[in-house]
Amino acid sequence: MNDTDIAGHVYRHTWKFDPIVRSLLDTDFYKLLMVQMIWGLYPDVNVTFSIINRTKTIRLADDIDENELRAQLDHALSLRFTKKEIIWLAGNTFYGHKQIFKPKFLHWLEQFKLPDYELSRKDGQYILHFHGPWAYSSMWEIPSLTIISELRSRAAMKDLSCFALDVLYARAKAKNVEKIERLKKLPDIKISDFGTRRRHSFLWQRWCVQALKEGICDSLMGTSNVLLAMDTDLEAIGTNAHELPMVLAALTNSDNDLRNSPYQVLKSWNRYYEGNLLIVLPDTFGTEAFLRRAPQWVADWAGFRPDSAPPIEGGERIIQWWKEQGKDPREKLLIFSDALDVETIEKIYHHFHGRVRLGFGWGTHLTNDLADCAPQKIKNIDALSLVCKATQANGRATVKISDNPEKIIGNSKEVQHYLNIFQP
Amino acid sequence: MNDTDIAGHVYRHTWKFDPIVRSLLDTDFYKLLMVQMIWGLYPDVNVTFSIINRTKTIRLADDIDENELRAQLDHALSLRFTKKEIIWLAGNTFYGHKQIFKPKFLHWLEQFKLPDYELSRKDGQYILHFHGPWAYSSMWEIPSLTIISELRSRAAMKDLSCFALDVLYARAKAKNVEKIERLKKLPDIKISDFGTRRRHSFLWQRWCVQALKEGICDSLMGTSNVLLAMDTDLEAIGTNAHELPMVLAALTNSDNDLRNSPYQVLKSWNRYYEGNLLIVLPDTFGTEAFLRRAPQWVADWAGFRPDSAPPIEGGERIIQWWKEQGKDPREKLLIFSDALDVETIEKIYHHFHGRVRLGFGWGTHLTNDLADCAPQKIKNIDALSLVCKATQANGRATVKISDNPEKIIGNSKEVQHYLNIFQP
Repeated sequence: MNDTDIAGHVYRHTWKFDPIVRSLLDTDFYKLLMVQMIWGLYPDVNVTFSIINRTKTIRLADDIDENELRAQLDHALSLRFTKKEIIWLAGNTFYGHKQIFKPKFLHWLEQFKLPDYELSRKDGQYILHFHGPWAYSSMWEIPSLTIISELRSRAAMKDLSCFALDVLYARAKAKNVEKIERLKKLPDIKISDFGTRRRHSFLWQRWCVQALKEGICDSLMGTSNVLLAMDTDLEAIGTNAHELPMVLAALTNSDNDLRNSPYQVLKSWNRYYEGNLLIVLPDTFGTEAFLRRAPQWVADWAGFRPDSAPPIEGGERIIQWWKEQGKDPREKLLIFSDALDVETIEKIYHHFHGRVRLGFGWGTHLTNDLADCAPQKIKNIDALSLVCKATQANGRATVKISDNPEKIIGNSKEVQHYLNIFQP
Repeated sequence: MNDTDIAGHVYRHTWKFDPIVRSLLDTDFYKLLMVQMIWGLYPDVNVTFSIINRTKTIRLADDIDENELRAQLDHALSLRFTKKEIIWLAGNTFYGHKQIFKPKFLHWLEQFKLPDYELSRKDGQYILHFHGPWAYSSMWEIPSLTIISELRSRAAMKDLSCFALDVLYARAKAKNVEKIERLKKLPDIKISDFGTRRRHSFLWQRWCVQALKEGICDSLMGTSNVLLAMDTDLEAIGTNAHELPMVLAALTNSDNDLRNSPYQVLKSWNRYYEGNLLIVLPDTFGTEAFLRRAPQWVADWAGFRPDSAPPIEGGERIIQWWKEQGKDPREKLLIFSDALDVETIEKIYHHFHGRVRLGFGWGTHLTNDLADCAPQKIKNIDALSLVCKATQANGRATVKISDNPEKIIGNSKEVQHYLNIFQP
C-alpha cells in the first residue's frame, strides 16, 4: 500500500497559514453591483464600515487570537482580482444581461485593493473599523465577516481529534442532506445560497452549495458568493443592501431630503440596473413608513425583499400594497432572506405559494449549522449574529431603524430624529 | 494551492485491483482457536465448507461479477501469514493467557495457505465449495463471506458519484454514532465487534470499530477480527462455533455417540482452553435437548452463548438451568450475538442486567447498516443473510437443527434422524 506520502506529510507538518479569504471574488454579488454604482455616483463619499457583534455575551476577543486575526486580514489586503476573474466578470451573463459591469468599472477593479483596517480590543470585543472612499471600505464587509466567522469555528474545533472532526463533518453533512430532502418536497421552490457572511468555513460553504445543487437541481437559483458562482457555473445572486439608504440618508441636509432619500436610492439604482435586479429593500427606516410615502413607480419594480419584518406579516403587507397600486402580486417577487431555516421556509412557502412569486435566500442555517454535531460538547460552534455595517458617512453617523428593534443602528439622538422623520 | 498530485492521480487511474482480504489475520478469532484444536485432534478429517445464501430472492450471481469474485478468491489464495503476524500471535496475551497458541501450531500457520475453491453458478446463485482437511477448509469461512459481502457493496455503489458516496458515508457515520450514543447510556455494558463476516467493507468495519472505541471506551471488550485487534491494540474476542458439534456429530457411528457428541466437543475444547474461553454454544441440535442431557460439569463453564433462540426466552432458560445445577447466575456469563441492533441490545440489557454477567457481540447492524444512506435509492446496499458452513465431513452430510427453523442445515432425512435422537 502506498501510504508513504512523504511530500504530503511534510507539507502538513510545515503548514503555517490557511487563508480564509482566497479571492476578492469570495464576496457577495450585491457588493459588486452596489460598488459599481457607488464608484460611479459617489466617488467622494468616505464611509466607515464597522464590525458589530450583536451577541454581546460572546467575548470574541477571548475566543479568537489577535495574531491570527491580523494575519488573515493582512492576507486579504494582499489580494487582487486575477485576470481570469476580471475576464469572467466581463464575459458572464448576470440576471440575463451581458456586460452588466462596465469596462471602466472593471478597469478600476483590476487596480483594486482593500483599504487598511483599524483593529483594537475593548471589554472582550474586537473593535474593527474600515475607513476610506465608500467603494473601497464597502468591499471589506464580507471578507471581514467570513474571516471572523471561520476563525471562530477553527478555535472551537482546535482540540478535536481527527476522528472527532470526521464525526463532526459526517453529522453536519447528514443534517444538511436531511434539510435539503425536506425542501425537495416543495414543488417549484426557488432557493439561493445566501450563506457566505456567517459560514462555518469556505470549504464547508462549497460543500453545502454542492449538496443543494445535487439535491434540489433546478430549484437552486444560484449563490450570492461570486467565487462559488464562477467555480461551479451557478448564477450569481443578489441586488442591494441597507448601506445604500443608510449612507445616502446620512448625507442629506434637510428633513425633506432625508424623508425622500429611500426613493432617491432606488432612482440611482435604476440608472445602473433593471429587470429582476430591481428589488426593493423597504425596511431600512421601517417598512410601514416606506410604503406609506412610496411613489407609484416603486410598484413597477420586480419585487421586494422584506428583510427584518416577521415574514408572513411583512409579506402580506407588501402584497396588500401592490394590490392598492393596482398590481397583480402573482407577477411580483417576494424574496425572503432573514434567518431562514427549513421550518420557516416551509411555513412561508405554504402560506404564499401561488399568490406571489417566491424566492428564498438561505443563509446561516445552510452554511453554519454544526451545533451538536461534534461527538463531545464544544463551545462556539454555533453561528454568531455578526454584521459589518456602514457606521459613518463623511463624518456623519448612519442610522438604521429596521422592522426589528434588535437591528437598530445609531446613537439614540440620531435614531430619535429619524423616527420623527419617518414614523411620525 | 497544491492540487497537482500527479502521482496520486495516476495511481488512481491505473488502479486495477483493490484486495478485500488483505491478510490471513483478517478473520474471526474463534477460527484460530478452533483450528488449533482441529489441527491437533482431527488432522485426518476432511470437511467441505459451502456458501449458503439464506436470502434466496437475492440472485447473487446476477449482482456480482464472476471475474471479480475469482480475482478476490485468487488473491486470498496468495496470502500467507506474515512474520509480524506470527510473532504477534505468539507474543500477545489472549483472554488473560500467554502463549495460547502452541509453537508447533504457529509453525504450521507459517506454512499455511488456503486450499483451492470450487466455483460454479446455478439459478442465479454461486455454488462455492471449499474442500480439504478440516483445519484448512475451515479457514475459508470468513474470507469467503467478507469477499462476497464487500463485492456486493461495491456493485451496489458502482454508479454513485463521488458526491453521492460522500453523502452515503457521512450519513452512515452519523447513523452509527447515534447508535453508539444510545449504547453509551447503558452503564457497564460490555460490547464486542462481531461484524467481520457480513461487513460492508474492511475499511468501514475499521471505522465502525474506531467509532465504538472512541464512543464507549471501557465498555468495548474487543473485536472478533484478529487483524483489527492487532492493528488497533484491542482484545481479540471469540470462542467456538457450530462447526465443531456439526462435524463431530457427522463422524459418529452410533446413536449413542451422536447423542453424546455435543458434550464430547466441550471436553475436547477444554483440553486446549480454559477460563472465559469456556463458553457453551448450546443450540446446534436445539438448546432444550442440549440442557436436558448436559452433564453437571457443563455448569462449571464460564458461560453460554444462546445464539439462535429468542434472546430473552433463551437467556431465561439457561439461567433457570444454572439455578437447577446450584450455580449463581450472577457469576455466569451470557453472550448474545444473534442479529443484534441497538433496540435488541437495550431490551436484553434491561431485562438481564444485574442478574447475570452480560456480553454482546454486535455484528451486521454495526458494520453493515447503510440502508437509506445514499442520496438516491440504490439496490443491494443492505446486508445479506449469508453463511459459510461445514456441509460434509469425511463424505457424510452435516446437520444443524438450531433453535430457529430458518437456520436448519442438512437434507430432510438426516435432519429427521437428528431430531429423533436429540428431541424425542
